[in-house]
Amino acid sequence: MFNVKVEVTLKKQVLDPQGLTVKHALESLGFNEVDEVRMGKFLELKIEAKDRKEAEEKLRRMCEKLLVNPVIEDYTYQIEG
Amino acid sequence: MFNVKVEVTLKKQVLDPQGLTVKHALESLGFNEVDEVRMGKFLELKIEAKDRKEAEEKLRRMCEKLLVNPVIEDYTYQIEG
Repeated sequence: MFNVKVEVTLKKQVLDPQGLTVKHALESLGFNEVDEVRMGKFLELKIEAKDRKEAEEKLRRMCEKLLVNPVIEDYTYQIEG
Repeated sequence: MFNVKVEVTLKKQVLDPQGLTVKHALESLGFNEVDEVRMGKFLELKIEAKDRKEAEEKLRRMCEKLLVNPVIEDYTYQIEG
């Protein structure tokens, strides 16, 4: 069993209206020292696999097929255990 | 200027319907080796501060006031120089 953490972020050149909204909300609360906010997704998965390599291959396929939109998103991951 | 990454996750005892939906979607695509999926948020912020300690204090206040719901969510962060 492998614990996997995936960070999915919008590519730099893609506009992030949700991040902008959060930035404005922070400003309205008095946090004027924030220059940029980008919102992404964070996923934690438990994957059964016989070894780390297999877990990684499965994860990559899951990301490509469902979890990530490769046109507008990037992802990074960490595999533990 | 500090780059900050924040991972916001639902507390373990809180049900995660979005994660369950993703798990079922993965199963319907043939990924039956996934035991659990938990969805969270991932934020990247650029914070102006004179030092790391100040950036960390600001970040914690932002999390407590807006970014995180402490009743149902936990968060971890990394501050990069």
